[in-house]
Amino acid sequence: MISKAFKIDKLVILGLGLIGGSLALAARKAGIVGEIVAWGRREPSLKAGLELGVIDSYSLNLEEVLIGASVVVVATPTQTAEEVLTRVLSLVDSSCVVTDVASVKGNLLAGVKSAFENIPSNLVLGHPIAGSEKSGVNAAKDSLFINHRVILTPTVETSIDALALIEKMWLATGAEVVAMDVAKHDEVLAATSHLPHVLAYTLVGALAEKDNSSDIFECAAGGFRDFTRIAASDPDMWTEIALANKHALLDGIDNFSDALAKLRSAIATSDGDSIRTTFEAAKKARDHFATIQAQRGNK
Amino acid sequence: MISKAFKIDKLVILGLGLIGGSLALAARKAGIVGEIVAWGRREPSLKAGLELGVIDSYSLNLEEVLIGASVVVVATPTQTAEEVLTRVLSLVDSSCVVTDVASVKGNLLAGVKSAFENIPSNLVLGHPIAGSEKSGVNAAKDSLFINHRVILTPTVETSIDALALIEKMWLATGAEVVAMDVAKHDEVLAATSHLPHVLAYTLVGALAEKDNSSDIFECAAGGFRDFTRIAASDPDMWTEIALANKHALLDGIDNFSDALAKLRSAIATSDGDSIRTTFEAAKKARDHFATIQAQRGNK
Repeated sequence: MISKAFKIDKLVILGLGLIGGSLALAARKAGIVGEIVAWGRREPSLKAGLELGVIDSYSLNLEEVLIGASVVVVATPTQTAEEVLTRVLSLVDSSCVVTDVASVKGNLLAGVKSAFENIPSNLVLGHPIAGSEKSGVNAAKDSLFINHRVILTPTVETSIDALALIEKMWLATGAEVVAMDVAKHDEVLAATSHLPHVLAYTLVGALAEKDNSSDIFECAAGGFRDFTRIAASDPDMWTEIALANKHALLDGIDNFSDALAKLRSAIATSDGDSIRTTFEAAKKARDHFATIQAQRGNK
Repeated sequence: MISKAFKIDKLVILGLGLIGGSLALAARKAGIVGEIVAWGRREPSLKAGLELGVIDSYSLNLEEVLIGASVVVVATPTQTAEEVLTRVLSLVDSSCVVTDVASVKGNLLAGVKSAFENIPSNLVLGHPIAGSEKSGVNAAKDSLFINHRVILTPTVETSIDALALIEKMWLATGAEVVAMDVAKHDEVLAATSHLPHVLAYTLVGALAEKDNSSDIFECAAGGFRDFTRIAASDPDMWTEIALANKHALLDGIDNFSDALAKLRSAIATSDGDSIRTTFEAAKKARDHFATIQAQRGNK
């Protein structure tokens, strides 16, 4: 239950894109915020956010927006998140709760560890697993997080109050909140998101280099379309994610490659039983996943 | 232009499932058939087809349904297609055109070559690239082939009249018809369909074996859902396809594995430029594919 008294007096969004903008809209709709202020490096997004009513005000001066902040959300691109996060933590006092929305957590925690003697108790790293093919504040919507998971990755140093505050904030957007160890988060995300992106990019890239690539793309149908949809994702963003989650991703690639080599050998030796067993186990797992999705109301 | 005089007096469908049933419905709707008769090994599908008005009559006796046939379509599962095809070719005379709808063509052609001195001129192997998550004659619909590709794989022995007849039949269903060499067909299908299925099965199977598989599937979102949708496909059917198209599929796996190893090395050495170049090339190809799809009216 969310207490009626729960309110974030001043919510500060650093980096106003799809995620930051949608969080602002959802928090406002839920009635849990007083003022919403944004900061960014480029004015157009901030101006658009103000005109769309996503935020109440903005500034290009980071120190200025942090004055009196209750909650600060670092929602900048992956490659700048670490720098912005450590800067914010050095500027705010411990009554201000600092969180983020980045896809990888281990590199951020390592950055914070190397910048501070102790991990600040007011830091609650988080990751809303939601997105859209569209990006930017213009695509922001208050329903983006409904029935989506938000993973929070507290450490032993994290204040219980700070954790509860960020959990309440996300619950108010309609999300389902789970807590997870940082390393586990990065491993799970490597498996379910980062590795599939790498595989989709690899397949499409490899096919594009073939002599008969035009025949290939002309003849591809629905299965190929779904399978390769994520290969249309932003290359810059995914390069940064691949680098940020390098170790878990390499483990994922190796695990996948071993399984593929095993299946290749079964095909090469025409071992139908072994192929069928692999396919059946995968179908069973995928059907189970579909059941979970259906229970959450996703197609 | 399809001549008004074009008519298939007796269309015989062997194996009445989604594809055979949809072809029957589409051909009837287009007004290009006289009688539609089906044969199969199991009566329930045939009975359902009759009750649904998909076919005019059926028999469990193959020789009986072939009497007076104008066009025979082998639409049985992959593992029995070769046997049924050669049997049909030994039973009908050269005025009856024989075609099929299997996903792999090389194994069928090899089977025909070993059964007959010459490849019969009335044989036109074909493959409609259309399907559905549903299967069976109950899922059949007359619109299944509209804007979908049908690949015909004639040989030098194929009669021009037979080829034209099958081409007209598929055009009448709303499909786009292309002709292609058998080996090329199998290579293109390995790349666009068989390999993606193998990769999706491999990923889901490998993740299901991990200790934290329940966390993984709980946290997976839309990208994973689309990427792994084909891993819910029928394991028996895909085992048969993997075996039938073994050589092209192994080449595809090796080509993919080489590309993945290259990308792995770029990630391991934190070579951001190289990762980005790979992702950008893939995105460009995927965007091009999306354009082709949009032109065809597919989402």
